[in-house]
Amino acid sequence: MTTNALARQPLDPDQLHAIDAWWRAANYLSVGQIYLRANPLLHEPLKLEHVKRMQLGHWGTTPGQNFIYAHLNRVIRQHDLDMFYISGPGHGGPAVVANAYLDGTYSEVYPEIGQDEAGLQRLFKQFSFPGGIPSHASPECPGSLHEGGELGYSLSHAFGAVFDNPELIAACVVGDGEAETGPLATAWHSNKFLDPVGDGAVLPILHLNGYKIANPTVLARISREELEQLLRGYGWTPYFVQGSDPQLMHQAMAATLDAVVAQIRQIRDDARLRGVATRPRWPMIVLDSPKGWTGPKVVDGKPNEGTFRAHQVPISVSESSPPEHLHQLEAWLRSYRPQELFDQHGRLKAELIALAPVGTRRMSANPHTNGGLLLQDLCMPDYRDHAVDVPQPGVSGIGDTRVLGPFLREVIRLNAQQRNFRVFGPDETVSNGLAAVFEATNRQWQAATAPNDEFLAPQGRVLEMLSEHQCEGWLEGYLLTGRHGLFNCYEAFIHIVDSMFNQHAKWLKMTAAIPWRRPLASLNYLLASHVWRQDHNGFTHQDPGFIDHVVNKKAEIVRVYLPPDANCLLSVMDHCLRSRHYVNVVIAGKHPAPQWLAMDAAQRHCSQGIGIWPWASSDEHGEPDVVMACAGDVPTLETLAAVSILRRYLPELKLRVVNVVDLMKLQSPSEHPHGLEDDDFDQLFTRDKPVIFAFHGYPTLIHRLTYRRTNHDNLHVHGYKEEGTITTAFDMTVLNALDRFHLVIDVINRVPQLGEQAAHLKQRLQDKLLQHKQYIDENGQDLPEIRHWMWNAPDAGTLG
Amino acid sequence: MTTNALARQPLDPDQLHAIDAWWRAANYLSVGQIYLRANPLLHEPLKLEHVKRMQLGHWGTTPGQNFIYAHLNRVIRQHDLDMFYISGPGHGGPAVVANAYLDGTYSEVYPEIGQDEAGLQRLFKQFSFPGGIPSHASPECPGSLHEGGELGYSLSHAFGAVFDNPELIAACVVGDGEAETGPLATAWHSNKFLDPVGDGAVLPILHLNGYKIANPTVLARISREELEQLLRGYGWTPYFVQGSDPQLMHQAMAATLDAVVAQIRQIRDDARLRGVATRPRWPMIVLDSPKGWTGPKVVDGKPNEGTFRAHQVPISVSESSPPEHLHQLEAWLRSYRPQELFDQHGRLKAELIALAPVGTRRMSANPHTNGGLLLQDLCMPDYRDHAVDVPQPGVSGIGDTRVLGPFLREVIRLNAQQRNFRVFGPDETVSNGLAAVFEATNRQWQAATAPNDEFLAPQGRVLEMLSEHQCEGWLEGYLLTGRHGLFNCYEAFIHIVDSMFNQHAKWLKMTAAIPWRRPLASLNYLLASHVWRQDHNGFTHQDPGFIDHVVNKKAEIVRVYLPPDANCLLSVMDHCLRSRHYVNVVIAGKHPAPQWLAMDAAQRHCSQGIGIWPWASSDEHGEPDVVMACAGDVPTLETLAAVSILRRYLPELKLRVVNVVDLMKLQSPSEHPHGLEDDDFDQLFTRDKPVIFAFHGYPTLIHRLTYRRTNHDNLHVHGYKEEGTITTAFDMTVLNALDRFHLVIDVINRVPQLGEQAAHLKQRLQDKLLQHKQYIDENGQDLPEIRHWMWNAPDAGTLG
Repeated sequence: MTTNALARQPLDPDQLHAIDAWWRAANYLSVGQIYLRANPLLHEPLKLEHVKRMQLGHWGTTPGQNFIYAHLNRVIRQHDLDMFYISGPGHGGPAVVANAYLDGTYSEVYPEIGQDEAGLQRLFKQFSFPGGIPSHASPECPGSLHEGGELGYSLSHAFGAVFDNPELIAACVVGDGEAETGPLATAWHSNKFLDPVGDGAVLPILHLNGYKIANPTVLARISREELEQLLRGYGWTPYFVQGSDPQLMHQAMAATLDAVVAQIRQIRDDARLRGVATRPRWPMIVLDSPKGWTGPKVVDGKPNEGTFRAHQVPISVSESSPPEHLHQLEAWLRSYRPQELFDQHGRLKAELIALAPVGTRRMSANPHTNGGLLLQDLCMPDYRDHAVDVPQPGVSGIGDTRVLGPFLREVIRLNAQQRNFRVFGPDETVSNGLAAVFEATNRQWQAATAPNDEFLAPQGRVLEMLSEHQCEGWLEGYLLTGRHGLFNCYEAFIHIVDSMFNQHAKWLKMTAAIPWRRPLASLNYLLASHVWRQDHNGFTHQDPGFIDHVVNKKAEIVRVYLPPDANCLLSVMDHCLRSRHYVNVVIAGKHPAPQWLAMDAAQRHCSQGIGIWPWASSDEHGEPDVVMACAGDVPTLETLAAVSILRRYLPELKLRVVNVVDLMKLQSPSEHPHGLEDDDFDQLFTRDKPVIFAFHGYPTLIHRLTYRRTNHDNLHVHGYKEEGTITTAFDMTVLNALDRFHLVIDVINRVPQLGEQAAHLKQRLQDKLLQHKQYIDENGQDLPEIRHWMWNAPDAGTLG
Repeated sequence: MTTNALARQPLDPDQLHAIDAWWRAANYLSVGQIYLRANPLLHEPLKLEHVKRMQLGHWGTTPGQNFIYAHLNRVIRQHDLDMFYISGPGHGGPAVVANAYLDGTYSEVYPEIGQDEAGLQRLFKQFSFPGGIPSHASPECPGSLHEGGELGYSLSHAFGAVFDNPELIAACVVGDGEAETGPLATAWHSNKFLDPVGDGAVLPILHLNGYKIANPTVLARISREELEQLLRGYGWTPYFVQGSDPQLMHQAMAATLDAVVAQIRQIRDDARLRGVATRPRWPMIVLDSPKGWTGPKVVDGKPNEGTFRAHQVPISVSESSPPEHLHQLEAWLRSYRPQELFDQHGRLKAELIALAPVGTRRMSANPHTNGGLLLQDLCMPDYRDHAVDVPQPGVSGIGDTRVLGPFLREVIRLNAQQRNFRVFGPDETVSNGLAAVFEATNRQWQAATAPNDEFLAPQGRVLEMLSEHQCEGWLEGYLLTGRHGLFNCYEAFIHIVDSMFNQHAKWLKMTAAIPWRRPLASLNYLLASHVWRQDHNGFTHQDPGFIDHVVNKKAEIVRVYLPPDANCLLSVMDHCLRSRHYVNVVIAGKHPAPQWLAMDAAQRHCSQGIGIWPWASSDEHGEPDVVMACAGDVPTLETLAAVSILRRYLPELKLRVVNVVDLMKLQSPSEHPHGLEDDDFDQLFTRDKPVIFAFHGYPTLIHRLTYRRTNHDNLHVHGYKEEGTITTAFDMTVLNALDRFHLVIDVINRVPQLGEQAAHLKQRLQDKLLQHKQYIDENGQDLPEIRHWMWNAPDAGTLG
């Protein structure tokens, strides 16, 4: 549908003039940000000394976004819309800042950047200036919840924001460069997951700007017919606005927005009032306008507007550049007729001010874009009600995440009214052991259904699409708008969103330092289906490196938990769901495994984050001969099995078992706020005794966290050594020398003067490992007696 | 286009019978792999003892892939096609193994799995069995170059494989679950980059299987009209084959493949013989067949075939399962009429053998799938011809990658005939300083062009799309088929492909241990536009953590290089392009920066990988007071600037400068083959002197690599501390305490008894840092005198 062709003229001459004036003002402020350090109102002829020495920034996308912003302002006022703006293309910074300044929000949050000449000068200076603001939409900009630094996540964020916000509309500008990324390419399908009754709307505006840094964009260089097929194939109803003549384009954009808003209302009314249940084909806009629109047509003899050369700074202006560049810049700035826009003191003229929406209807002041303002605590069930009974350590469990499931089910139930909690995952919620949530809710799904589907419904608290990017992007959008959530994922494949995690962690770090930004709920990862239990998936599914990646980010932001059993998992998850402004990574198993701590003990242990397990130790609270440390469910099991063997066969050995739930306890407090003081660390790990540390992940991570500790030279870490395959859980630990036998052997090797009995035991264990290898190769199963060396198993066999 | 509707019957009854027999044989072998450990030919009634105790594997996708494989075999024979197979859906392992066994390839590479009953039994046993093969297409399977473990990369791999292979056709089965991933969703657009003259063809077969693990798929639950629009919008001509009746489906699939092959030939002839230059709309197939096709219809009263319940093992058979399960399994197996397929000894019957293509026309034996077989060395220019003249250390450079550009241009020129080298990047090849390559080639581009485009042409050695996933996937496909390449990328955004790197590194590790697999060219990353030079992009573009991620993978596979200047970069890149079966990560700057080593010295330094720079040191080859170590171009500059200050103001201090090019030298040789022996390490870094180490990335990485070294306690690393923003290069180092002033101060703090002059210097440097802060806040530029404290600048000012 090309509204140009409709030739409707919804704007009367006054409206047309006013909206064009807003656009010119925004463009003027954008060029000013890129170029000017003085003379912001051009009260005098432009001189070199008024121009920034370093001209850094991006003009190309800016005028188109200013155009869109101006027109969105009009429909917001006209229809009293609750709408906010996402700037998807890279480097749209000048546009969002200019518009936030024009509608007054910028000066409200930054009073020093007032609505006068001095304020303008500061506004201009800070842009792309050391200590200032970057050239893309950033946390410092009010109205922004999406950063245009790394591309591809705008649409996912937009959908995340409007879930459970039925009146909200996310106007999401998608760059045609950004549209080439994988995450964006699949995000168009989000419309199959949006409920027109309970959720808001996303209005994508694909900005067909034509070029990236140096190349044309794919979507601008396929036929219009193909593009329309593509977007309809994605399930949208596209409206095309195309051209470069401002007057014609204003009318076309206004007519299109009127049509689009009417269609959104129609869809809502159909769904909410008339019970229409078919998936709507939501409207979207394709804006085809020249890159660097209204900028210089030709620079140095080469076409600029409408080419890739308009991407960054179209004209370089310096002492060494041709003198006409300065004149060209001045003519460009004056083409916006600033004297018609600002009064003598730099105040926006009244007729322009009148164009902006008012209060929180201004997109820059929409509270959803500063989600902490709207954040409501979750109603939390008592996690202790879901405790596993652990009469003694080592009792059988059903799978730790399977205990967590009913707790999450209750979280869902208790917040059904608030509608502020969702679970996200790539088709793995059941596989990850959380099937209990479907006793309280469904998978939200708007596409067709069939008789044998399970748990699909138009409304539901669980969103599952086979795209980790979508799960992450939706969740981020949901959190950024002041809600709570959980992403459950296979451990190996969470690396798919490494880079998205990076950007979110950076956002959290930045916003924590901005006074008017309010804290958000934490981003919670539950990594079940972890490296040690990929019995039939094998090597491709084995990678515990996400925590290595996570701990590179600012310590104030990141938390890593490795609960050893179900009661600890409950306690940890309760904590995470209540926490604010962190990224919490929780790793837990889904397979039946022994349980260690009763609820009270688990709660104490988790609140300390690290501690001695005296019931497993034999040092009688004195100095041990060796410390057996463990972090993670499988390493804890292997450690306790090793302890069982040691206590049985080398009863004189004084053992201490230390379990780590909160990995950050290992770092020093100067590195991480959770870090143990050196003295406390030494109390646990001794100053000079061997420490055999069984770790869930890559061993180097433990060294990296502890290399400054007193006893670090005696720390011997067993963990994942990138030796993977399809095999049993126990054999996986053998392949990586994390198993009970290797641990015992390492103790024997490290503790001096253990004598003949130890040497004999070592030999028997080495034999046992050979026997294991032979048995599993033949039978595909563990030696039957492996199960005997669990924790103090009453039927414990002999090694003989 | 639905060929069902055409109702063509291309198969005569004999052909129909034969192709169905092949399909049944493949299905039988697939079910056998999942279930049987004995009685592989069902010579006796099935008993529990014949059935595997652990039944692990995935049936759902398998029969559809067997169907496709059988039909591809027919058209390969009929048209003598050079075709290979990519199994995109997760867990298609039973299918590719079964077909490779049927065409004889499997027994050729694994003679112990022969074409007899014993061979069949071994074939069945190894599947999803400890020490055996996983349930997805894996390196162990001949004919596979793509692993179905992590989903989303099949189409990118397919395109990478056919670039510069004009006769090759990649038959790429795309799972409808996989199709939800971001990387796959954008990979459809690869057709805008494929040259019908110089490249081969990709035949995507979207397998509309209907379900993922637990959910329906999006593409199966949109209207057929939408799906067709989507695929046409992606630029393809889709042919639909839909149904479940085998006889009808065989005819439909055969007719469709005939049509599709004819269309591919037509497109080739148009482009190659008739000079047609318009972008072709390549054909593709949508196969809509039931999940678990031909499997049990109902299990335990619940529908199975055609539902998500067919995803893994449809019927569980064990001592504790209902007895009818065993009967149901037997009936299922016998439904394929194995006695018609295999003779009494387990040999495939002759009429079936006659169906398979012959020799290397068999998809499982296609040499492109074992690319090392086809690998030709690159014709390499002499990198020394591109050397920068460095009469003395510290001369100005033009930007290191800008020196590399002409070298790469010559690599392109010298291999223009071989057509086996390509450069990949997300629209950043010019931005990364490699514009010189466009003197020799173009960006390959098949979409529309416009007058102001630069370097676009139908054929070119550079492929640029704004998708790191596509760049990585294309390059992997190109390498896996025996060619060479380079991925140039912004450092921060290479994290987007963290997970793809993981899988490729795993593939390399696995294939290195498989005797019939041949080594590949290395995967080379050039990370320009790195963390220290994001002057206007700021925090979102600052992340040096990819190397942390990389070093978690097997040491035999990964290499990390940090050349300090252009001549070193040339030497390193020459080495990388000649190397085999590694992942090489090279980090280099693009901005003008000082040059240190003349070509001879650079060559020696890079071949050692680490070394003392005696010209910068003042220890006169004796024991120094302090070691100044550096790795990376910016850290090297700051270190040498610090050394300049120290030598001027504390001339009595004995300094040693150590530069690290090959980061893996820091590890011990037990950890990495490049690692220095402890003695050699101690020779460089001393056993007890302070080491001030300026590092490109996160400081913990250096600790992680060196924590076992003698002098580790004295190692003080300065690096990126996640303090980023838009600012000057120098200010970035100040923010992270990596700058020359902080380095000097650290030396003063660490070297005992330096006396009053040092205390005075420290004070002046602290003042200078404050002055810097104030100056840059006001002026947005570095203090003018900063440039004086370069390396031994002749106009070096005073600090007074």
